[in-house]
Amino acid sequence: MVASMDAAQLNAFYAEAFPGGSARVEHADGVTARLRLPFNPNSTRPGDTVSGPTMMGLADSAMYALTLSAIGLEPMAVTTSLTMNFLRMPGRADLVAEARMLKLGRTLAVGDVTIRAEGALQPCAHAVVTYSIPPKKAVAS
Amino acid sequence: MVASMDAAQLNAFYAEAFPGGSARVEHADGVTARLRLPFNPNSTRPGDTVSGPTMMGLADSAMYALTLSAIGLEPMAVTTSLTMNFLRMPGRADLVAEARMLKLGRTLAVGDVTIRAEGALQPCAHAVVTYSIPPKKAVAS
Amino acid sequence: MVASMDAAQLNAFYAEAFPGGSARVEHADGVTARLRLPFNPNSTRPGDTVSGPTMMGLADSAMYALTLSAIGLEPMAVTTSLTMNFLRMPGRADLVAEARMLKLGRTLAVGDVTIRAEGALQPCAHAVVTYSIPPKKAVAS
Amino acid sequence: MVASMDAAQLNAFYAEAFPGGSARVEHADGVTARLRLPFNPNSTRPGDTVSGPTMMGLADSAMYALTLSAIGLEPMAVTTSLTMNFLRMPGRADLVAEARMLKLGRTLAVGDVTIRAEGALQPCAHAVVTYSIPPKKAVAS
Repeated sequence: MVASMDAAQLNAFYAEAFPGGSARVEHADGVTARLRLPFNPNSTRPGDTVSGPTMMGLADSAMYALTLSAIGLEPMAVTTSLTMNFLRMPGRADLVAEARMLKLGRTLAVGDVTIRAEGALQPCAHAVVTYSIPPKKAVAS
Repeated sequence: MVASMDAAQLNAFYAEAFPGGSARVEHADGVTARLRLPFNPNSTRPGDTVSGPTMMGLADSAMYALTLSAIGLEPMAVTTSLTMNFLRMPGRADLVAEARMLKLGRTLAVGDVTIRAEGALQPCAHAVVTYSIPPKKAVAS
Repeated sequence: MVASMDAAQLNAFYAEAFPGGSARVEHADGVTARLRLPFNPNSTRPGDTVSGPTMMGLADSAMYALTLSAIGLEPMAVTTSLTMNFLRMPGRADLVAEARMLKLGRTLAVGDVTIRAEGALQPCAHAVVTYSIPPKKAVAS
Repeated sequence: MVASMDAAQLNAFYAEAFPGGSARVEHADGVTARLRLPFNPNSTRPGDTVSGPTMMGLADSAMYALTLSAIGLEPMAVTTSLTMNFLRMPGRADLVAEARMLKLGRTLAVGDVTIRAEGALQPCAHAVVTYSIPPKKAVAS
């Protein structure tokens, strides 16, 4: 049986592990995950739009949540690569990230993440993210 | 003549445009740039090491500085893509980012960024970053 | 009105521009495109599976077809970046590539491509591809 | 002691494993590798320049050679990801690829590859390539 974490367990873990973080896991089932990041005026860049690093952090968090939802609590799962394409400026808006598992292997999890401004049809960013899964992972209680 | 910005001009611009930022431009000449990010305990992740998003933000800042050092002040130069490979955990350390211009075109600037923990020989991360250059750029005064 | 090309026009162009090529455009509508590459024993690698460069070429062709289906005949649209993740070995199989437009801008088109072995549910590779659109493009007749 | 392969051993292996291939390993020492691809008029694209897939294949071969030069003969080392940035059109020219190891880990090797047209100062393409190293690798004889 595969250990796993749901959205509530992930939010509890994130609150403890990343005290300053503000993305909230809305859904995670091992195959897809959805996170929401409320707009924060301190996370903007010239052009009055959410900054690139903020979106990269959200993409990374979304793939982390998706991976842990698949394999269970494993804080030392680490990002090995992230490719981000910035498509449109989101402006001053909440962001919604939808992650999708492309491959869950023995040592690597690969997924992509599509980020949209709240209510927008077209994505503002797209990421492909790879996580490394430690050889002996802790099992979620 | 090509407009350009040096390290002092870039630091003055960063201080105004990104009030919370803390990376410092040590050198920038249009071909290479070097930035330093002092260790901040609020920017760590499980494993007691500088977080991935912090390193992605540093890589992005380094390529932004390199691009502006080549074309002059252009706040609306924006990242179009960033590919990050995480190589080793830097631990609790200052980070030094060295950016190198691979191509400065009419509409795109492409470079790579190598990040090392202060004093380390081997890189902890490597990025390839592309910036889009606006059609009519402001010229540095 | 946007110039555009359909699958038949794209196949005619490919046959002329890439005499050795064998991928066939099955569908292209400016938003999505589907290409098929018949298995060729000369395109394998150790492990008796379609080689990586073969799959990269297919991903590139798929995004080229998708871009031309959106903007019309423009042979000098060129790839500016391609990020490929290899997920599973396809073995000895025809490959089907499905491309999706993420952004069609004034100077750049960005899309992703999912490649599956014929009949397989899970993808064997995923690519994000960016094409540069020339300032003055030829219009398809 | 680390098993390894030199340029002559790699060329002998390539000749057998990729009968149609034509890239030649000029140097490989586990840390850097240099390959040369003679110009072939059948590998061009519109614009009378070496095609993108040809350059991606060369980048992949260069990182394969570098990895095998470090770990010894392991045909089942496979590419897990490749990010290519196309910088300038090489035209009708031999290509020289220089690969550099960024990290040689237990399960992953990460490097970058810079490709230049013969005699050119500026690169025509840059790649970051990751290879997966099988758990039990064969040792070079």
